[in-house]
Amino acid sequence: MAIILYDLAGAEADRRFSPFCWRIRMALAHKELAVETVPWRFTEKEKLPHPNAGRVPVIADGASVVHDSASIADYLETRYSDRPALFGGAVGRALTSFVQNWTETVLQPASLGFVVLDIWRHAAPQDQAYFRQSREERFGTTLENVVEDRDQRLPAFRESLAPLRRTLERQQFVAGDAPAYADYIVFGAFQWARAISDFELLRVDDPVAAWRGRLLDAFGGLARKAPAYGG
Amino acid sequence: MAIILYDLAGAEADRRFSPFCWRIRMALAHKELAVETVPWRFTEKEKLPHPNAGRVPVIADGASVVHDSASIADYLETRYSDRPALFGGAVGRALTSFVQNWTETVLQPASLGFVVLDIWRHAAPQDQAYFRQSREERFGTTLENVVEDRDQRLPAFRESLAPLRRTLERQQFVAGDAPAYADYIVFGAFQWARAISDFELLRVDDPVAAWRGRLLDAFGGLARKAPAYGG
Repeated sequence: MAIILYDLAGAEADRRFSPFCWRIRMALAHKELAVETVPWRFTEKEKLPHPNAGRVPVIADGASVVHDSASIADYLETRYSDRPALFGGAVGRALTSFVQNWTETVLQPASLGFVVLDIWRHAAPQDQAYFRQSREERFGTTLENVVEDRDQRLPAFRESLAPLRRTLERQQFVAGDAPAYADYIVFGAFQWARAISDFELLRVDDPVAAWRGRLLDAFGGLARKAPAYGG
Repeated sequence: MAIILYDLAGAEADRRFSPFCWRIRMALAHKELAVETVPWRFTEKEKLPHPNAGRVPVIADGASVVHDSASIADYLETRYSDRPALFGGAVGRALTSFVQNWTETVLQPASLGFVVLDIWRHAAPQDQAYFRQSREERFGTTLENVVEDRDQRLPAFRESLAPLRRTLERQQFVAGDAPAYADYIVFGAFQWARAISDFELLRVDDPVAAWRGRLLDAFGGLARKAPAYGG
């Protein structure tokens, strides 16, 4: 029986753009587990199985419901310990947290400042008012104002990727010779931007772009074939 | 036979302040290996055993000479594989590179901007001219100018530690329940600053300060007992 993944969708049901859901989509493919995704919108909180925190990803694996991407990854690693490893042991698990925290305090907040207006544009109609209001409250200004100077912010953003870039200059994946969950965490941020916006975050000759290309091609092109505005 | 570590020293031979040497000092203690350190100054390039790149750390383990902190850590992990692990496997090794690259592109460059004048002050007399000239060339200004606004830069610096702080809010060490090489990489930067400067980088209630305290106490207080201007 396939695992059910509640997956954030845009105006089109097959446009999936949550960075957290992409982590799990890639992790499920890594574990070679069948998945059925259920398109879900921000304002459909009552449609999630329990327990949940009003956000996706949530998975239902038979009778087991697990929410929060990190908890889902831990669940998959334990429940499917005979499948390819997501973490590579206790130290790998702990260091993956550092990669997650870098992604969530550096990469994702900065990326949001580039694509937040495009998210609103391509969100489901029933989500647009909620999305605009909640994000404008957070930013303290309009979404239009947030993205207005995004071209000027791009060089500093690319500079802030130095730890990632230097790592990928020296190894194929964040996790080494093959990708693991740490890669999917970082990749989720780029796939989020790519799915919802045509604004290109990376220079074409950036080693980070080459790594993103390898992950777009992984698992039979799972991420590359998904609907996206980015190249 | 103890491993010989060539270790950067200041005006006083027992003041050791290289962030890269501290990584190895801690790694040797982690591996429970005896060490004899040789105080070394920037301008004593001819005193290092071969091969070397004109920098420390360099170790001599019997007939084996290894230089560069990452290469030394790899050497120790392989040569002393029966001792406590520094990396915890291939994924742990790869993710440790990300931590290293974050340390070397974010933490250490910013830290240098706080303590560089103190390094010059406390460097061995024969190193002072070399140190000032090479660093002023790199910064494009005098060391006095570099540190002049350091108080104003402190809040942004502390903010830039968010990935580390969030990790240490949720686990005792970067590598999990116990420290490993990833911890020693990050700790090396703080011990460097602490050894050479009384400028306090961290708020006393910062979870990063609590973690630093745990590592100062590790291995019988190895780092805490070392000569330092910081608390």
